Amino acid sequence: MKKYGFGVDIGGTTCKIGLFEITGQLLEKWEIPTDTQEAGKNILPNIASSLQKKMEERNIEKEEIEGIGVGLPGPVCADGSVPVCVNLGWKNMHVAKEMETLMKGIMVKAGNDANVAALGEMWQGGGKGCKQVVMVTLGTGVGGGIIMDEKIVAGANGAGGEIGHMTVNSHETISCNCGRKGCLEQYASATGITRLAKERLAQEHKESLLDKAEEISAKTVFDAYKEQDKVAEEIVEKFARILGRALSNIACVVDPEVFVIGGGVSKAGEVLLEAIEKHYRKVAFSSCKDTKFALASLGNDAGIYGCMKLVLE
Amino acid sequence: MKKYGFGVDIGGTTCKIGLFEITGQLLEKWEIPTDTQEAGKNILPNIASSLQKKMEERNIEKEEIEGIGVGLPGPVCADGSVPVCVNLGWKNMHVAKEMETLMKGIMVKAGNDANVAALGEMWQGGGKGCKQVVMVTLGTGVGGGIIMDEKIVAGANGAGGEIGHMTVNSHETISCNCGRKGCLEQYASATGITRLAKERLAQEHKESLLDKAEEISAKTVFDAYKEQDKVAEEIVEKFARILGRALSNIACVVDPEVFVIGGGVSKAGEVLLEAIEKHYRKVAFSSCKDTKFALASLGNDAGIYGCMKLVLE
Repeated sequence: MKKYGFGVDIGGTTCKIGLFEITGQLLEKWEIPTDTQEAGKNILPNIASSLQKKMEERNIEKEEIEGIGVGLPGPVCADGSVPVCVNLGWKNMHVAKEMETLMKGIMVKAGNDANVAALGEMWQGGGKGCKQVVMVTLGTGVGGGIIMDEKIVAGANGAGGEIGHMTVNSHETISCNCGRKGCLEQYASATGITRLAKERLAQEHKESLLDKAEEISAKTVFDAYKEQDKVAEEIVEKFARILGRALSNIACVVDPEVFVIGGGVSKAGEVLLEAIEKHYRKVAFSSCKDTKFALASLGNDAGIYGCMKLVLE
Repeated sequence: MKKYGFGVDIGGTTCKIGLFEITGQLLEKWEIPTDTQEAGKNILPNIASSLQKKMEERNIEKEEIEGIGVGLPGPVCADGSVPVCVNLGWKNMHVAKEMETLMKGIMVKAGNDANVAALGEMWQGGGKGCKQVVMVTLGTGVGGGIIMDEKIVAGANGAGGEIGHMTVNSHETISCNCGRKGCLEQYASATGITRLAKERLAQEHKESLLDKAEEISAKTVFDAYKEQDKVAEEIVEKFARILGRALSNIACVVDPEVFVIGGGVSKAGEVLLEAIEKHYRKVAFSSCKDTKFALASLGNDAGIYGCMKLVLE
């Protein structure tokens, strides 16, 4: 009987691995280093031997494994192959096929890491109980994942959910990392919030807790915001106005049940949600004015959960 | 053997009906009036008797019918029910169930008319051969339909594909029909293009074919554009810049294989596609710079094709 599965979230330095029951129960998780030497040729064999060791240790038979889901830091084609993955050194790697051979025929599926994290949050995290989820990851950049009918919208070129690169300001003069100008990521990421804060602080002076802050960061801005600091309020308002409007535009495309907000910036908690929601509801199209907002709840484990869910489709 | 199916596209004044082979071959199409009297209670019975008459006429048995797809001018829930449909006078109408009873158990599915038109264009029209399609309908308003993995993205509130109400200009002072300001529809619909034209013509005067036009409309603008009229070029450039950017933002969400452009404005043909494509490629995120563009090719039949495809899922 199929009872178990593995979720494997491959990052540039470590691979996170989870052993799950197919009900969604995480039984155990561990990490192994990602060996990117020699074009990453040892990555999959290392994972396979770690999984096999775990199966022996726990006395789990091959026949009891539903499948193995693999998340990767780059675009993945629908057939589970990877044209190129810079962070792992791979070129034309047929991840699903290779891993299936290494694991003696156990079914393997692969997906992009941001997308599988969104799937994980839908399944067992902030979006639990919903089938249509837009995940918004506010970290160094702004990432995303679109889940419709419990399935990842990967897109024709793997760019599904690349919401950080929606253009939100066609008058921007500074370039985004992607080379274009005015991307959402330039205002709504941790880096973006820091930039908005520095720009505000360089303008007319108003006394602020941020004057004494050792460094200006998304965290210090939200800390001051929680203390009702007026300057921090202006910065958060601007951030939330830009993000709220971008999400209202996303709602006109895919109309999710819930927006799940994750990434480092989301550690600010409920006040962050409230700020975004306020602006979203102000500008959203009438039919989708009441879309729910939730904080991501799986943290760094979202990827392994989503990988596990991949094989349950 | 299941060999046939019906596509029924219910509009406010007429119902378009198509008899199809399940291969996608349209065998015959006809129309009946939509009787919206008495809260539209005759609409489904009238359709049912028209379908039954056709089956008798052609000697088609119930067992040979795969199903009946129904398209409606309003939001449709996932179970085929309609909370409210102003144009038909319906409230809490369980379309799929009612129609199944009327048709003695033949399977019925229902969808929103803009969405089923998108599905039709994916199946047998401008998006044929693609599974991820964004349909953009430039008519009196701007409608849309999102098809991912050959399925309609209806959204949690039936607002999937409501791309006409993406906000593209937060500085707009004139209101959209939806009550908000700066919607894509205010610039990219036939009405929007007419408005852009009138605004341009009210500014500094430059000789133009439009000076002599009997009326200013999207058609006269594109006719002058085809004659290399400079003023028409300015108007079309502005329209295409706004629409191209909006489509580039949609690509960052769902990353389709193709944008299919339909609706009355699309009668302008290849020059319209070229203008939109030029601006799209200028601003699109690198991964989706090469997304294809195609003209819709089924015209008013897109709906019945899409309705037929609904039941083949």
